Amino acid sequence: MQKITVLGAGSWGTALSMLLASKGYKVTLWGREEDGIEDIKKHRINEKFLPSISILENIYPTTSREEAITNSDLLVIAVPSQAVREVIEDFKHYINNNIYIVNTSKGIEITTQMRMSQVIKDVIGEKILERYGVLSGPSHAEEVIKNIPTAVTVAAYKKETAFLLQSVFMSTSFRVYTNPDVAGVELGGALKNIVALATGMSRGLGFGDNTTAALMTRGLTEVVRMGIALGADPRTFAGLSGIGDLIVTCNSNYSRNNRAGNLLGQGKSLEETLESIGMVVEGIHTTRVVYKIAQDLNIEMPITTACYNIIYNNKNPKEEVENLMQRRKKHEIEEIVNNIDSW
Amino acid sequence: MQKITVLGAGSWGTALSMLLASKGYKVTLWGREEDGIEDIKKHRINEKFLPSISILENIYPTTSREEAITNSDLLVIAVPSQAVREVIEDFKHYINNNIYIVNTSKGIEITTQMRMSQVIKDVIGEKILERYGVLSGPSHAEEVIKNIPTAVTVAAYKKETAFLLQSVFMSTSFRVYTNPDVAGVELGGALKNIVALATGMSRGLGFGDNTTAALMTRGLTEVVRMGIALGADPRTFAGLSGIGDLIVTCNSNYSRNNRAGNLLGQGKSLEETLESIGMVVEGIHTTRVVYKIAQDLNIEMPITTACYNIIYNNKNPKEEVENLMQRRKKHEIEEIVNNIDSW
Repeated sequence: MQKITVLGAGSWGTALSMLLASKGYKVTLWGREEDGIEDIKKHRINEKFLPSISILENIYPTTSREEAITNSDLLVIAVPSQAVREVIEDFKHYINNNIYIVNTSKGIEITTQMRMSQVIKDVIGEKILERYGVLSGPSHAEEVIKNIPTAVTVAAYKKETAFLLQSVFMSTSFRVYTNPDVAGVELGGALKNIVALATGMSRGLGFGDNTTAALMTRGLTEVVRMGIALGADPRTFAGLSGIGDLIVTCNSNYSRNNRAGNLLGQGKSLEETLESIGMVVEGIHTTRVVYKIAQDLNIEMPITTACYNIIYNNKNPKEEVENLMQRRKKHEIEEIVNNIDSW
Repeated sequence: MQKITVLGAGSWGTALSMLLASKGYKVTLWGREEDGIEDIKKHRINEKFLPSISILENIYPTTSREEAITNSDLLVIAVPSQAVREVIEDFKHYINNNIYIVNTSKGIEITTQMRMSQVIKDVIGEKILERYGVLSGPSHAEEVIKNIPTAVTVAAYKKETAFLLQSVFMSTSFRVYTNPDVAGVELGGALKNIVALATGMSRGLGFGDNTTAALMTRGLTEVVRMGIALGADPRTFAGLSGIGDLIVTCNSNYSRNNRAGNLLGQGKSLEETLESIGMVVEGIHTTRVVYKIAQDLNIEMPITTACYNIIYNNKNPKEEVENLMQRRKKHEIEEIVNNIDSW
């Protein structure tokens, strides 16, 4: 592994470049002109996304696709999830048979309901999955560049690929665990954004820490249900890419999903909310996709349904919470009850 | 269910009394003189623990055991876990064969390594377990008395007991789920305090949200391992009494465990830390008990071991974190890997 290419010069792409460069790899950081690549080249600062650090010497910022990918051994995808297909298509012709791909984008493609590995397979072909991994977990870029202890998961279909990627990323402050459950790790990263919307709404309504914890826990139950239906291992959601990522996201004011939920909880319309945030709010789209899948597969997802009703049916957030609280009495985990005869 | 007796007039006992009284039950709130029972009687305020609310008319504060328990249908235990045996022994002779008991204390008895239901069985006899339940989950008393939406779990060996207790406690702002896994719910409440110590230490060392989320997630993995060894269902720990309670505790400045961890992380000794907190820090004891059990049963618990070494062996917190980060490379969840042939 000599040369690594990072696609996307946002805060996460930049932070991962710094991590890899500090381990001695030659890193090419590719972005579009509007991402400020020229500025990074000149001033060695990512003014827009991570202004507090100076970019290491062995990071080569470029806007040229060919320059970015020639002789590259590993492609790190760090663009927004809805842009992954387009970016991969643009790079397709430069991608050789030996390159590894690790994806860090969290989302489900809205138009196709595909996970990111499915999008990539769709564009490049099935063979890439042997050399594909997904890296996910509770990891604010702002903390990773300060070498604050962080732990993440890398999932891959092939054990050797997982081990390779683990070695590439692992450092004394960045601990990487391996997991064979690609679907689970990809879904956890996407579905958590619905829960972050819900906890944001709860805050916006003036509710407390009890409510946040309840929504996170019961939200996780929904994530697990959907995950099982889509082929994930439920135990993955108890890990870093599941509950771990949920914890940082729901407690963070940086999270756009959380902030958008807060505004919706205060009674703002979807239009006002999106205008106020001014950027893509991943969870808004994920809610629609997941609500649709839940309907199709008949999966019970009351928190997702409440979010959907508030966002798309103009329902009152307070009433939706009251509905959640007053549903019929339930067992906490049906699967446990089903295994016990006396219950 | 006519009369309910709450043992313990701390913030949680008082909040539960308010919840039950607001549902129309006749509640007797028992406490010791030093808990300010006379004051509550006179001024209808729990000055010491919940000064912000006035105590409802149908709550009868008393220091008399006989008065408290005569004709009572349900005993709610809300005293510190290390006091449960003594309190139950004191009440033993007043307890009839028809009374139900619900425990809300979170801890393991240090001297015997017993869970709370085991302590109660030890004192009153096996028969009580049919009418025993444990109520646990993310529930700050300060929020429950304000009717902020809260969700908890009640576990019981008998389904009928679980359903009864669910009905007794459930309100429009207090949602109760049922679970048959008594051991899991009891252990979750106790073991989370070790993780709260660890996240407190991490904060004290100046680490960030990534580190907190990693410690909570990997801490949960240890809790699950210990839980399985002690007969709990691992899925319970993904619920309200597991990760749910962990979330509120690790994010709360009210948590003594968190605060104690913070002081230890800053380099204070155990003595200085305990002096500064001035009250029992449940997790300090739980760490010792659980470390011992982990040694006896050969269960891998690196975070618990680090806490133990910092608290009892005067080890440097920073070095312990470095050790945690630099352990050998690991799979995230061994059980998933073991099920997949190609891995």
